[in-house]
Amino acid sequence: MEYTFSDRVQTLKPSAIREIFKYAADPSVVSLSAGNPSPEAFPTEAVQEISARLMKDHAIDALQYSVTEGYAPLRAHLKDYMKENHQIGKDFDDLVITAGAQQVMDLTTKSLCNEGDVIICEAPSFIGSLNSFRSYQVRLHGVPMEEDGMDMAALEQALKDEPRARFIYTIPNFQNPSGITMSLQKRKKLYELAKQYGVMILEDNPYGDLRFEGEYIPSIKSFDEDGIVIYAGTFSKVLAPGMRVGYAIAPSPVIQKIVVCKQGADVHTNIWAQIVAYEFMTQYDFNAHLSMLRDLYRKKAHYCMDLMDQYLVPNKITYSPIQGGLFLWCRLPDGVDMLDFCKQAVLRKVCVVPGNAFLTDENEPCQCFRINFSTPTDEQLEKGIRILGELAKEIL
Amino acid sequence: MEYTFSDRVQTLKPSAIREIFKYAADPSVVSLSAGNPSPEAFPTEAVQEISARLMKDHAIDALQYSVTEGYAPLRAHLKDYMKENHQIGKDFDDLVITAGAQQVMDLTTKSLCNEGDVIICEAPSFIGSLNSFRSYQVRLHGVPMEEDGMDMAALEQALKDEPRARFIYTIPNFQNPSGITMSLQKRKKLYELAKQYGVMILEDNPYGDLRFEGEYIPSIKSFDEDGIVIYAGTFSKVLAPGMRVGYAIAPSPVIQKIVVCKQGADVHTNIWAQIVAYEFMTQYDFNAHLSMLRDLYRKKAHYCMDLMDQYLVPNKITYSPIQGGLFLWCRLPDGVDMLDFCKQAVLRKVCVVPGNAFLTDENEPCQCFRINFSTPTDEQLEKGIRILGELAKEIL
Repeated sequence: MEYTFSDRVQTLKPSAIREIFKYAADPSVVSLSAGNPSPEAFPTEAVQEISARLMKDHAIDALQYSVTEGYAPLRAHLKDYMKENHQIGKDFDDLVITAGAQQVMDLTTKSLCNEGDVIICEAPSFIGSLNSFRSYQVRLHGVPMEEDGMDMAALEQALKDEPRARFIYTIPNFQNPSGITMSLQKRKKLYELAKQYGVMILEDNPYGDLRFEGEYIPSIKSFDEDGIVIYAGTFSKVLAPGMRVGYAIAPSPVIQKIVVCKQGADVHTNIWAQIVAYEFMTQYDFNAHLSMLRDLYRKKAHYCMDLMDQYLVPNKITYSPIQGGLFLWCRLPDGVDMLDFCKQAVLRKVCVVPGNAFLTDENEPCQCFRINFSTPTDEQLEKGIRILGELAKEIL
Repeated sequence: MEYTFSDRVQTLKPSAIREIFKYAADPSVVSLSAGNPSPEAFPTEAVQEISARLMKDHAIDALQYSVTEGYAPLRAHLKDYMKENHQIGKDFDDLVITAGAQQVMDLTTKSLCNEGDVIICEAPSFIGSLNSFRSYQVRLHGVPMEEDGMDMAALEQALKDEPRARFIYTIPNFQNPSGITMSLQKRKKLYELAKQYGVMILEDNPYGDLRFEGEYIPSIKSFDEDGIVIYAGTFSKVLAPGMRVGYAIAPSPVIQKIVVCKQGADVHTNIWAQIVAYEFMTQYDFNAHLSMLRDLYRKKAHYCMDLMDQYLVPNKITYSPIQGGLFLWCRLPDGVDMLDFCKQAVLRKVCVVPGNAFLTDENEPCQCFRINFSTPTDEQLEKGIRILGELAKEIL
């Protein structure tokens, strides 16, 4: 039978990264293409204890239907925690628990955008979010990245050119895939531009807590006096992604629409996971856990950058050093066929993500690829980057 | 600030049932308005054991990112189980794990329907599904229910009148809210009509396993030789709704689109819950558990119907006896203001759901309200129905 699908899904393709995962599933392949936290990063003992106690004392709470907004103690704690630690959340804001930050992208777009509306995003940007946006038939307008975040002149031009722009999507800290962190000055400028042109901001901050060097930079949401910023947070990088717990902090009218959409999408987020997140934040030393993560990723990132200095840089592949996050963004010399390089790497059993996967238009030229250092072991990292270096030496 | 929302969410309202829950949260109110399984229905010890073992032996599996399609062992087992026990699943079919059956409604509509398309549904029908459909700006065409399911003449007329109909939505077993089960004859007729008019069928079967009397009737999906039926299943009523695990069995091209949409919606379903569902089905006596549920709900349903015979029927409120499910559908005499009756019940601290909440157009006349018997205790049931009877005696 021939099936007819909706216009919105006709052109949607599975994420290119997910396709690459199929190669990466071959155990003989060194995968530098994932975005998974290191297995060492999971507080398994704590989750085990919390889970056992919960099932013993309050099993029904974890098994019965719950409210769409999320587990009330977690919501209340997160509001306090984010206000106290990050100056996020004003009186006009509210908070909803979601199925990972991915659901914030989905339901924000569903709530704000009509077909043909425009979302302004960083170029490159996180493919999972871009695909979610695309599924609502919006048009993506990419703004080039500089070392300290979006090119502000290009952003202003985009805002001038796009009267149907509904929001600016940004990952200000250790952006996926570029690793770039937006400067405080640009965060303030971005906020002022959004305000001036009457568009909202969707600030996605999965990696903010993973800063292992340099100075903390306040989030855009922290200077939101006008109720124009939707902040997306997640436990995926600081607790465990398999649990699928994220949250949005945004003006109440926006949260209300997200909640109505969430009712129709999945009723509520898995409640066991919400309770585990709450107990972990309140009954354990959450700050010590974040410190442990920073130590872990500092070590892994430096190990990875050292390997790159050893194997890649001498062979004409450059990269931007990072101060946090899980990714490094590597650049091939002009004139080299990036996709071909990535394919040849796969043939030598090393998987990286071709940079064009992260563009608003995958057919635009791109000299970059993304490397992840959190998932592979040190041995895998060494082997993978060494092989990339050998390949570069041969063909560049 | 004034916020502008997308056209699709402008008119979406929180579910009327959810609004009623706010009254029901008052502990002095007897709530007959929920749809929650009985707390006694949860296999808490099994979940406790599975969860402890999982966290001890394979914690990383439960905490790390997983694939969008769902936990592979659960998918494989469900395919076999549904084929063996319900003759569901042909070679052209595939299966995806979702965040409850609610997500099947959401992503099926997203995959199949453009704005202005039509979904044909039972009238009344499950409000959660109707709201999910509405969020894609489809038009709902309700087909009146008879004692043995949809009025087939009206269904055929609807198919003739609605060239943009994309699928027929049905809950064939112990329908929510009406309690009605579609006869085998009508299931076959519905299938033939759908085939003839080139529309798909979305068969939602949350209550099929909760038949406590009468004869098993094969699902519509079991005679799908043409690849036109999308079957939605769930663990919410047979394991635990707070876990949010459901699934769709449908032709592979449809499943592929649902998977792409799910990637953008929430990446994957909470993996702990998927593993618990798998272990519970395979390491425990799942059939014995279903038997226990049937015994539990048979007892509660009969207790409830006895109370209704005692308190309501003599006071002019009628109902349709049921052979499964969690709901009873009660009818007030013509001329009585149903909404006013429900409000007066709330003032006497008994909550039921006004029947118009389940209509495609809430403003249509409706003489019915829905009672749930699985959530309240026997004492609460007795008290609630007695008070409804007193109210009926006074004002009818």
